[in-house]
Amino acid sequence: MELENEKRASILSDALPYIQQYSNKVVVVKYGGNAMTNDKLKQAVMSDLVLLSLCGIKIVLVHGGGPEINAMLKKVGKESKFVNGLRYTDEETINIVQMVLCGKVNKDLVDLLYSHKGRAVGLCGLDDHMIEAEQLDPDLGLVGEITQVNVSLINDVLEKGYIPVISTVAAGKDGTVYNINADTAAARIAAEMKSENLILMTDIKGLLEDKDDDSTLIHTVGVSEVPYLKKQGIISGGMIPKIDCCVEAVRRGVKKANIIDGRIPHSILIELLTNEGAGTMII
Amino acid sequence: MELENEKRASILSDALPYIQQYSNKVVVVKYGGNAMTNDKLKQAVMSDLVLLSLCGIKIVLVHGGGPEINAMLKKVGKESKFVNGLRYTDEETINIVQMVLCGKVNKDLVDLLYSHKGRAVGLCGLDDHMIEAEQLDPDLGLVGEITQVNVSLINDVLEKGYIPVISTVAAGKDGTVYNINADTAAARIAAEMKSENLILMTDIKGLLEDKDDDSTLIHTVGVSEVPYLKKQGIISGGMIPKIDCCVEAVRRGVKKANIIDGRIPHSILIELLTNEGAGTMII
Amino acid sequence: MELENEKRASILSDALPYIQQYSNKVVVVKYGGNAMTNDKLKQAVMSDLVLLSLCGIKIVLVHGGGPEINAMLKKVGKESKFVNGLRYTDEETINIVQMVLCGKVNKDLVDLLYSHKGRAVGLCGLDDHMIEAEQLDPDLGLVGEITQVNVSLINDVLEKGYIPVISTVAAGKDGTVYNINADTAAARIAAEMKSENLILMTDIKGLLEDKDDDSTLIHTVGVSEVPYLKKQGIISGGMIPKIDCCVEAVRRGVKKANIIDGRIPHSILIELLTNEGAGTMII
Amino acid sequence: MELENEKRASILSDALPYIQQYSNKVVVVKYGGNAMTNDKLKQAVMSDLVLLSLCGIKIVLVHGGGPEINAMLKKVGKESKFVNGLRYTDEETINIVQMVLCGKVNKDLVDLLYSHKGRAVGLCGLDDHMIEAEQLDPDLGLVGEITQVNVSLINDVLEKGYIPVISTVAAGKDGTVYNINADTAAARIAAEMKSENLILMTDIKGLLEDKDDDSTLIHTVGVSEVPYLKKQGIISGGMIPKIDCCVEAVRRGVKKANIIDGRIPHSILIELLTNEGAGTMII
Amino acid sequence: MELENEKRASILSDALPYIQQYSNKVVVVKYGGNAMTNDKLKQAVMSDLVLLSLCGIKIVLVHGGGPEINAMLKKVGKESKFVNGLRYTDEETINIVQMVLCGKVNKDLVDLLYSHKGRAVGLCGLDDHMIEAEQLDPDLGLVGEITQVNVSLINDVLEKGYIPVISTVAAGKDGTVYNINADTAAARIAAEMKSENLILMTDIKGLLEDKDDDSTLIHTVGVSEVPYLKKQGIISGGMIPKIDCCVEAVRRGVKKANIIDGRIPHSILIELLTNEGAGTMII
Amino acid sequence: MELENEKRASILSDALPYIQQYSNKVVVVKYGGNAMTNDKLKQAVMSDLVLLSLCGIKIVLVHGGGPEINAMLKKVGKESKFVNGLRYTDEETINIVQMVLCGKVNKDLVDLLYSHKGRAVGLCGLDDHMIEAEQLDPDLGLVGEITQVNVSLINDVLEKGYIPVISTVAAGKDGTVYNINADTAAARIAAEMKSENLILMTDIKGLLEDKDDDSTLIHTVGVSEVPYLKKQGIISGGMIPKIDCCVEAVRRGVKKANIIDGRIPHSILIELLTNEGAGTMII
Repeated sequence: MELENEKRASILSDALPYIQQYSNKVVVVKYGGNAMTNDKLKQAVMSDLVLLSLCGIKIVLVHGGGPEINAMLKKVGKESKFVNGLRYTDEETINIVQMVLCGKVNKDLVDLLYSHKGRAVGLCGLDDHMIEAEQLDPDLGLVGEITQVNVSLINDVLEKGYIPVISTVAAGKDGTVYNINADTAAARIAAEMKSENLILMTDIKGLLEDKDDDSTLIHTVGVSEVPYLKKQGIISGGMIPKIDCCVEAVRRGVKKANIIDGRIPHSILIELLTNEGAGTMII
Repeated sequence: MELENEKRASILSDALPYIQQYSNKVVVVKYGGNAMTNDKLKQAVMSDLVLLSLCGIKIVLVHGGGPEINAMLKKVGKESKFVNGLRYTDEETINIVQMVLCGKVNKDLVDLLYSHKGRAVGLCGLDDHMIEAEQLDPDLGLVGEITQVNVSLINDVLEKGYIPVISTVAAGKDGTVYNINADTAAARIAAEMKSENLILMTDIKGLLEDKDDDSTLIHTVGVSEVPYLKKQGIISGGMIPKIDCCVEAVRRGVKKANIIDGRIPHSILIELLTNEGAGTMII
Repeated sequence: MELENEKRASILSDALPYIQQYSNKVVVVKYGGNAMTNDKLKQAVMSDLVLLSLCGIKIVLVHGGGPEINAMLKKVGKESKFVNGLRYTDEETINIVQMVLCGKVNKDLVDLLYSHKGRAVGLCGLDDHMIEAEQLDPDLGLVGEITQVNVSLINDVLEKGYIPVISTVAAGKDGTVYNINADTAAARIAAEMKSENLILMTDIKGLLEDKDDDSTLIHTVGVSEVPYLKKQGIISGGMIPKIDCCVEAVRRGVKKANIIDGRIPHSILIELLTNEGAGTMII
Repeated sequence: MELENEKRASILSDALPYIQQYSNKVVVVKYGGNAMTNDKLKQAVMSDLVLLSLCGIKIVLVHGGGPEINAMLKKVGKESKFVNGLRYTDEETINIVQMVLCGKVNKDLVDLLYSHKGRAVGLCGLDDHMIEAEQLDPDLGLVGEITQVNVSLINDVLEKGYIPVISTVAAGKDGTVYNINADTAAARIAAEMKSENLILMTDIKGLLEDKDDDSTLIHTVGVSEVPYLKKQGIISGGMIPKIDCCVEAVRRGVKKANIIDGRIPHSILIELLTNEGAGTMII
Repeated sequence: MELENEKRASILSDALPYIQQYSNKVVVVKYGGNAMTNDKLKQAVMSDLVLLSLCGIKIVLVHGGGPEINAMLKKVGKESKFVNGLRYTDEETINIVQMVLCGKVNKDLVDLLYSHKGRAVGLCGLDDHMIEAEQLDPDLGLVGEITQVNVSLINDVLEKGYIPVISTVAAGKDGTVYNINADTAAARIAAEMKSENLILMTDIKGLLEDKDDDSTLIHTVGVSEVPYLKKQGIISGGMIPKIDCCVEAVRRGVKKANIIDGRIPHSILIELLTNEGAGTMII
Repeated sequence: MELENEKRASILSDALPYIQQYSNKVVVVKYGGNAMTNDKLKQAVMSDLVLLSLCGIKIVLVHGGGPEINAMLKKVGKESKFVNGLRYTDEETINIVQMVLCGKVNKDLVDLLYSHKGRAVGLCGLDDHMIEAEQLDPDLGLVGEITQVNVSLINDVLEKGYIPVISTVAAGKDGTVYNINADTAAARIAAEMKSENLILMTDIKGLLEDKDDDSTLIHTVGVSEVPYLKKQGIISGGMIPKIDCCVEAVRRGVKKANIIDGRIPHSILIELLTNEGAGTMII
């Protein structure tokens, strides 16, 4: 049993250089997918964030909430309207999005962090107009394109010792609210915070050379390799916007971005505190 | 025209002693009723709060949202179940309450304050477990009774220069969320903040001696007079819980509590910055 | 009566954007003339300054005191000596100037501000050698020309929450004290403080196109228009040094300067907190 | 020559324990008499105060100005009116007192301190209503008795690194200004500041057993010995109010009070930084 | 391999509640014995301390140095003199003790912490007279008994972000230096710091019921059980002073004291960050 | 006797401009030679440093310790090995150097400063790796050449109100410790601290034109004159490295450097607080 503890202590000890690397730095975590719906994984993520926060890392949690939004839309009998294959966001929809994200998903995460003794505050793009947007395309209705990210509220909240938890709806003119992509918002916030790392939690292994073979994981991708990998079809489908987000973040000054597999318990800890990544790193 | 401006300036000047009285003090405003549904009144209230905040008064805004909750419950086809004439709050209902209050009403108020250049942050009882509650009565389901109010987050937010806007759902054990009465929550927050004033915005003139005659408004009620006024039937019906809230607040150390008529534009300014109250004051 | 209060509240509410514009900014007020000798106007000015200060505006009050100086000179039987039509300031005179301004006018204003619950400190150019000067012209004796303005004492006093009230005598070498023009001193202080506004209170309406017709008030004058207006004779006589002061202040970085009519009660509030100016603005 | 410097250095070195005793403590110096009228002594006092201030001692300078007041009263032809042998202070007189003390003596001292590179601010009892008084005796007119001393302005000024220089006129109700005794004011300020030492500069050697024999100087007087010394006639005449002031200060918590001979150059340094006092100490 | 990392991450995650318990608390570690002479163990201890410090625990390191002192005494050919079986500390010996502890052992530890990127400052009881002592027994020479511990220097050093490393020689009167017991000094410092934990690193398993059988380790001992355990002979020999130190610390307010086995790598981490202790806890 | 005190006070007063010149500035004192071995001179130096520190001068004390090192080397029977006439520093020697300097000389100075009520902290180049070095010449063994000086620890210690006392051993890679020249270290620290003055205490009068005639002291040497003076043989022998240190310091931004005669009591006070220097100044 003691041997076991010696092993445990040795593992803790191994984390030292990684904690030193991130100490007092900002890490933006985009949280979504399986890790958000599977209750056990969810608890693990919350626990990890509190741990990292205690170790002196400034965690900013940005979350999505697609499944909850869809469930609610269904509940109110809202039929989705599609324009050229893209979903149209009307006012009723954006209201549901805002309610579900800012009122339910966000505050439940805050409550969950508290159950792990993490002090958190639930925010969204409307608070202090932290994220401002304008209409991306009239054909898509209230889908927004970020025009400005103002992180002073995030900094104030971090300085006071809280973990900011952020829903990604954005403020438009005259009270209009826009639905914005959570990955993009996380990337932009990471850039404004001069973040050390942007972590996108997903339901995949990372970028695979052969998407049917997990053993072909590409551990590191340079920003300059991306166009070639797209051409090769290795970056394709749903990976395109994810990788583009990462590239955008790195281009705007984030040190590195990681697409990690949220289905693995404690994948954030593996990514940040061990010698191996938990997916694909874009630098 | 200049005469007009002289008049205006003289009125501004008259506000000086009132501003001095509240300068650097906390005033908790419970916002609800007509003033919250009528758009013009709403704009006026937001503008008033920003003005008071600029004059050095620490405004804490606590809001309700009954009509929006009812509309949403109706939309999802939720039938209300009544127990001994009281509405039973099941889990589906509390979810709607939380979504509507914390996600929609709260953040829309924050957005509206911003349109008047007021910097605000939308919070609820779950943030940093600011309000903790336990079940009031098993027969009522998830209706909570406040067990603890922790105002350190409110103080942090005020210190950083933001107006805290607070939805009154409360945190229970193991992630349970409780619906709590907004007036009561406002009273408890006011007490914890050692507030100078608790203002309850209502849809009535104030406490009337003859409830059908607005000219019989009682301007001031001492806490000790309340039992007698109840016995006389002057405090009756919906006024009982309102007055009880005020009494509770005053007993816990709030300097005074006011029931004001939210239907009058700028009634908060009348109450705080002129020589007349805008309703009934409990001291 | 309540209607009256609604009206009052609405007027207070209208002041919001103006307060926002000046919030946390410095406004230097040069106080003199009728507004300083008429007791009722004086009370109104003091009350206005306390109000503005409470609203977060950093007020710096610079005052003159010609009539009190003349009264005292007369009292001690001091005959004025004139050189080419200009009054010669000998040592006896500068002593009287210093005594009256720094000892009487200044401290009485501080006392008056306190009666309106304004916390003020009476200073002059000798305190911490805030204003340094050298002789302007040997023929005029101890009339000084400002060589340096050091506002660190003003900033310290403002930071501690006091209203600085400043007499404009200046420190020369070896204990020499110089009489300096109060408008000029105010303009220089405003410039050093990177003031939002310099307000010169006068006994006239402002700059008039026809000086005998108050209805010909010019509301705004651009700095570049001044030479033309002088040539036209519209800026003439006593207006020349006033306007030159304003131009100097604006050139040195003050956002705008205003010549306002101190004979109108609360003219500072009209100027700063309403949609109309109270005289002529130089920008 | 070097021997000389060795001697000098040794003397500087001897001052160490005395500086340590007063480091970061408040010493209130009542400045008056010969040391204030003799120019050379005046320069020495100013230089001493700057030195003590640099050594970390918080100097508060309270000054009188009898001769200058008398000169000015004479200049304006003011006849003094006496009531039972005491001078009556009418409004004209208090105006002269205020002008001369606050405007001339005070600010000239500030200017003089600056010439020794001391940063000073000239204040009086009217600033922030630091000293409040009421009428002592209707028969004496505007002679005041101190009702309250508020030292927050003095503390603010010290904290910002300035030497406060204080004229002792006091604020009454409704703008009335009272003439107050400078020794008494210094004693009260010393008490409120929990001062380490109150130093009264006088034109005498100190308390003498035989007032015609300087060699009979009493170095230390305990508060409890005072009644006996009065009875013996050793404390008599002008010494009575001086000693009473010191007793008052000590009773209110000042560690010790000293009556020193201002005619000796650098008597403050002798008192504070050497092993001998420069007069009589009351403890 | 990833499974391995999942395991590692899970172990890191398990440390959360322990880190939370000690976050922002003081832990005093008395470092000595095998863990200090075995180079690999030494590296592990230094690494552990840096890790704990990064996790927000305020580490104070107190060290001994018996072997190094003995080696040096031998080198200079110093014969130990014994009095009633106790070693006599003469001046030559205390000089060697001071040199070796404060100059060599202490600064080498500081250097070693730096090699793990830990910022440390080497102090001893003489610095700011942190530890004052008087002679314990004339027969023992310069062996001291602590009379006062002043931790303001330790707090200053911690506040600035350094790990204080402390040699336990103490300051006596007139420059006398005393040799004091390092365990006792650690206990006294822990008490003054209101420490959460005092950890004594030893070369034994902990308190054993049967001292020849490691499997009889007593995990927890209440302060009140100590006399009984002594009577039973379970606490005996070298364990008596160790346990007495712990009891002293707990009685003076330290939450708990631990005697841990320094021969086990990372025993401090095991003690502080896992669910098992690494020895015997006294509470 | 009083005349004596007047004289004393006058001498104290004369120090004012010198204290003003150094107030809040850094002065690095390299302490060594006779002033460090003669007990009476030592007490005087410590007293002087405490006095200067109280007067607001930021004193940094850098010390040597040749005689103590030699005594200890002799004690352990260490034979010095010479390479081309230069002493070779092997590991045993550097250990003795470190022990004696950091453990004995340093901490004894700290203790002595405390006896004069000076709060001091004993540091060396290993603390926070304040001084880093690499091998100067393999033939000389562990003699180091400074590669980096990091003064943040010194600044932290000064800010907290302590006098830093510094032993000049330096940190190399992998725990290697180097012996470095104390004069050079003092010069480098003075440069990094943007020091106002570097004072080297020696056992000579200063730079003499005729080294056998004390009356030929050169009071001031410009950096540009040094090569000529070397050529002339006036700067020769042991003066060469001393003067080179001073030149180095001045070239790196120190205002001036002084070689003073530590055999004269209070020579630091003479240098800093009187109108004469105590030796030779390099500017």
